[in-house]
Formats: sequence, C-alpha cells, structure tokens
Amino acid sequence: VLIEKVDTPFLLVDPVKATRNASRMRERIAALGTGLRPHVKTAKSLDVAAIMFDGGVGPITVSTLREAEAFGQAGYTDIVYAVGIASHKLARVAALRERGVDLVVLLDTVDQATAVAEASKRSGIRIPALIEIDCDGGRGGIAPDDPLLPSLARVLADGGAEPRGVLTHAGESYFCRTEDELVAAAEGERAAAVRAADHLRGAGFDCPVVSVGSTPTALYARDLSGVTEVRAGNYVFFDLVMAGIGVCGVEDIALSVVTTVIGHRPDRGWILTDGGWMATSGDRGTAGQPVDQGYGLVADVHGRIYPDLLMADANQEHGVLRMRDGSTAPLPDVPVDTQLRILPNHACATAAQYDRYHVLGPVGDLQAVWPRIQGW
Amino acid sequence: VLIEKVDTPFLLVDPVKATRNASRMRERIAALGTGLRPHVKTAKSLDVAAIMFDGGVGPITVSTLREAEAFGQAGYTDIVYAVGIASHKLARVAALRERGVDLVVLLDTVDQATAVAEASKRSGIRIPALIEIDCDGGRGGIAPDDPLLPSLARVLADGGAEPRGVLTHAGESYFCRTEDELVAAAEGERAAAVRAADHLRGAGFDCPVVSVGSTPTALYARDLSGVTEVRAGNYVFFDLVMAGIGVCGVEDIALSVVTTVIGHRPDRGWILTDGGWMATSGDRGTAGQPVDQGYGLVADVHGRIYPDLLMADANQEHGVLRMRDGSTAPLPDVPVDTQLRILPNHACATAAQYDRYHVLGPVGDLQAVWPRIQGW
Repeated sequence: VLIEKVDTPFLLVDPVKATRNASRMRERIAALGTGLRPHVKTAKSLDVAAIMFDGGVGPITVSTLREAEAFGQAGYTDIVYAVGIASHKLARVAALRERGVDLVVLLDTVDQATAVAEASKRSGIRIPALIEIDCDGGRGGIAPDDPLLPSLARVLADGGAEPRGVLTHAGESYFCRTEDELVAAAEGERAAAVRAADHLRGAGFDCPVVSVGSTPTALYARDLSGVTEVRAGNYVFFDLVMAGIGVCGVEDIALSVVTTVIGHRPDRGWILTDGGWMATSGDRGTAGQPVDQGYGLVADVHGRIYPDLLMADANQEHGVLRMRDGSTAPLPDVPVDTQLRILPNHACATAAQYDRYHVLGPVGDLQAVWPRIQGW
Repeated sequence: VLIEKVDTPFLLVDPVKATRNASRMRERIAALGTGLRPHVKTAKSLDVAAIMFDGGVGPITVSTLREAEAFGQAGYTDIVYAVGIASHKLARVAALRERGVDLVVLLDTVDQATAVAEASKRSGIRIPALIEIDCDGGRGGIAPDDPLLPSLARVLADGGAEPRGVLTHAGESYFCRTEDELVAAAEGERAAAVRAADHLRGAGFDCPVVSVGSTPTALYARDLSGVTEVRAGNYVFFDLVMAGIGVCGVEDIALSVVTTVIGHRPDRGWILTDGGWMATSGDRGTAGQPVDQGYGLVADVHGRIYPDLLMADANQEHGVLRMRDGSTAPLPDVPVDTQLRILPNHACATAAQYDRYHVLGPVGDLQAVWPRIQGW
C-alpha cells in the first residue's frame, strides 16, 4: 500500500530502526552478563515483541493483566506484572498461572502480601511475588534495609505464596541530564536491588530474582553484578524524551504519527494539520528538558526532519506547526494535502492513542498492520 | 454488578448528571431561539448521544469520519465534520452521502474548495461545505470580511459542490476567567459568523447555515440572532477545566476514572493508585488556570470529594495522590484495595483512553457498559 493512500492520522513504525534499537539493547545487556526482560508496555504488540526477541519469545514485563493475558495466549510463559497488585486482580492472576503462565506479581505492603497469600491458599496455586524496592524516592517500594522486607517475604511464604525476589525501577533516571548522572542512576538502581537481595538472603530467603531497569539505566549501566535481569521497553522505539536525555539520537526514533496538512497561515507563521492531541497524545515530556520539542518534531513523509519546525500546539484533531522560538529559518512551504510525520515526545503515550501500527516497508510503502493490546 | 467487583482502572459515567447537563444545554439553546448540533467528539458514544437528544436523534457534529460512519449507520443523517477536510478523505465523505447521510465538510483554502468541487464532479455527488471563519485568532478559518470568502463559495458552486454556509468556533473562550469575558467571547463568535454570512449573502450566496459554538460560549451567549445552530459537546460530562472557567460546578462532572489504592507512603505524604496517565490521560488543562487540579480531584467510590486531595503525579500505570500544596488537612487514611474516583481535567482526553464506559446505576451499582467509537 502506498503511504499516501492511507487516511491520516495513523501511527507509523519503522521496523528497521526498531530492529536496530532492539539489537543494541540485547547486545548491551548480554555484554553485561545478565538477562533482559523487555517491558511490553510501550509497544503492547506481539509483532514488536518479536523484534525485541529477534523472532523468538522470552521473559517479559507487563503493565496490565490484559497484556499478560494476550502474551500468555501467544506462548509467553514467563511474565512479571510490574504494577503493585490490587487484591481484586488476583483471580485473573491465578487463572493465568493455571494455564501454565509463570506470572509474578509485585507488592510492598503487608495488606498486599496477605492478599496474595490468601489467594494462593484459596486457589491452591502458589502465586509468586517480587517485593518492590525504592531506589530513588520516585514512586513505590520500600528501602532495601527496611525491616518490612523480610516480614513481607515471611507473610508470603507462611501463607502459601512464594517470595521470589526483589524489583526496583530508577524512574528518576528520566530526569538525568549528563552521562555521569545516568551512570550513577544505574549504579544506584543496581546497588539498591542487590542490597535488598542480600537483606532477604540474610533473613533466610533465596531471592532468585534481582530485577532492575529502565531504558536510560539499562543503556548506561557499567556493571550489573548481582542483578539477574534488566527490564526496559521504551528503547525499541525511543522518543524525543530519550533523545533529550541523550540515550539515543532523533534519527533512532522508530515511531511517528503521519498527519496531513489541512491549512496554512503564513501571516501567523503556522501550518495546520489533521493530527491533534488525539493523534499524538497530550504528552509534553520534553517541556522540562533543556530543549522543549513542543508536541513533537516534524519530518516529511520519508522521515527527513524539518530543522526547527515543531508541532507547537494541539487541539483534539488539529495540530499547529510553527518554527521554534528564536529560529531564523522560514516556515517551510508545505502545500495542503502533504503528509508529514510527527516524532513523539513519549512513545508510550503516543502509541496509546492507537489500536494498531502501520508498518513501513522497504520502499517507503506500508507492508503490514499490527494490532495493539488495549485496556486493562 | 457491584462497582467493587470490576477491575480498575475503568471509566465511569453518571447518567443522572449527564442527563441533567444535557437538559440544561437544550433548554438554554431553545430559550435563545436557535438550534443545537451537539458535538459527539467528547463522548463518542451512541448511548451518550441518546442522552443529549433525550432519547431521539438529531443533527450532530463529528471530529472524525469514523464518528460520522458510526452515527450514520445508527440513523443520524445530518452531520457536520468540523475539521478542515483533506482531499484523500473525500472518498469516504462521498460514500456516506451516497448512503443517505447529509454529511457536510469544512474548509478555508482554495485548494480544499477545488478538491471538494473535483470530488463532487468525479462522484456525481454534490458535496456541501461550510467555510471556516476565524473569530478569535486561535486556530483555522479566515476573517469574516476576507475577500477569499465569496471566492471559496464560488469555487465550490461553479465546480459542482455546495457552499452551505459558515462555521466558527471560539476556542479562546477556554481561557476566559470571568463571566464578562465569556459573554464577550460568545458575542464575538456570533458577530463574526453573522458578519461572514452577510458577506456571503452580499456576494449572491444563500448561506443557510450560520454555525457557532463551544461549551463556554453556548452557556454564556445572551443573544444568538442570525445564528442557525450552536455546536457544543463537552457539556454532557463537563470537567475540571470547565469548572475552572466557571461554567459548571465540580458536582456536575458526570465522568470519572475509578482506581484502586495500591500503596501508602505517609512518610512522603502520598497514596499510590493503579490509575496513571494511561487511565486519566496526561492532560493538565487546569495547570494554566488559577486553581491547578493536578491530574484530577479525588473522590470516594460514591463520588464524595476529598477536600484538597489531588492526583498530583502520574506514571503510565501509577497515580500519586497528595494533599494540595498549602493544605493543612491530613492525608486521608484510605486502605489498600479501596476504590477511588478521579475527576478529569479534560473529559475529551480522559475518555479517549478507553474503549467503553461503565454506567453508574441507581444504587451505586453498574448497570451497563457502553462502547466508545475509536480511531479515525
């Protein structure tokens, strides 16, 4: 299919770039001597996961039970659900385990551990859980040396569930600005996880899983001793936030939104497109970075970036393109009906606006449509 | 179904509030002696549209051809597609008209008018178009006295298409802060549309349609002389942005996201939920208003608002609830597994994260699931 024949807006993935990004991460983690457990929450796609595993399957991380169910159905049997468990979701967890999927939950409170233990007892299925460790104060989890850590493992083990290890996420690494900060965030993440694992082992638990990860720390870790697996997901697409942190270049970004020019206002210095925030998401993740990319950088349909042209404003179904403040370049003369690509601030958020990907083919055509897993 | 039995996050609509909001708008527009053409882009739901029309059908506004196709299929035969037309979409427009739907497109350039005329000739179907008028400098459209206005009508008429009238949208009314400003925005919108219609009529065109609208101006217009129809959509749900403008109270908001508490960090002053930006959208529309509501106000499962408690931060699947800055109230003691409702900044954006609504029943139960129309 010719790309010009598809009604805009639509979500475009470049499988060549995604493949290169996936190889880079696999090689990097292999060189560090540990395992990779890709997070499928960015792409939510069996086809993109196949790229992440170079055609095979493997251990994955999910952000919703819907993802776990879809991947479980497709033959992925080793899954970590990396969002703190709510007890009403445990019936679906048990059902998936019953179907042969080794699904592991996450928790950091006694209430949750008790609920997991009770669900294990009730269902006769020993549910494994990781205990969430806080490595940077950003979100959930307990400190590595918190006495609650062995207590939680004890509640699980005594109640018929399985304490399988510890998990942490250096979410604050998204705010790093230099390589030194990224290296330090990665080491902080590793050290917290390993310290927590040692704490658990000192209390008599095995702790076979020591899980860390985020795309920035995965790419900047110098050493992962003591870590058994790295979780990362964004890297398969990358985005402007990641480019702003410095972990990729804008030319590595494998995801874009194709829009059509529907108006020109040279008097106001803008171009109007049919891609608003419904098409790109309202994510403004680069707003807090040194270079604010608005709602996204703009490229032509072949992916060549227009220097200094930004999607500066968004209504539901309208995008407003303008030159970056301070730019001396003229507004490109792009006629009505021209297709343009918008590179996303945040691939996870932009992709979430769609139920499918259009897949770029070798000669700039569209070679496939890949569905996305939606909902919870 | 008991509300507590449904896995969170999910999107909850209160049909009693939506019905009251819809009646208020119908009565208001009827009192002003003009027609109402609800915009279905907020709800994207046949069931919610039925509330807007008190059980019947009527003229609607859409933001995507997918909406036009779904509503056309369901018996809505009078539809305005209020986003500037791109020529590659005209085949779907012609197909809908062939099926008996009076679908009208929007444009403001000669290129678009030429494309509509050519598509009319090619298909043998006379496609009607409204010409977009700019009333506040915010988006698309031409000035009411722009000589381009009759030229566009001429291109349409001579080429076998139908110039049906003018349309404007006071998008800047979302930034009004006082009743006087809202009244002035409404009058500015009306005056621009009527002036444009007079301009067209002076050039020998009929201009049967003079279309204005936005939820704030629809609710604050004092006089709509010369206007044939008002478009508005957000009003059926309302949201915190609308409450911040002052066009509704927070108690009128008919839409919320139900989440579950998955963690407590009283040491950091926060409660963690399983509803992140994937559940609420990343829309921060109140950030520019006098009262910033974060990612949303927080209510209990029955809808009672916790004073000063905000969803202050969001990851993909985690929400962080905190007391508003400066609040002296203590963090509510809400145990893990408790369901909470988050009231949205922007109903259009929050609803867009879901493929369905759960519908609140008369005794706080869930009485139905209503699908949403997704995509383009």
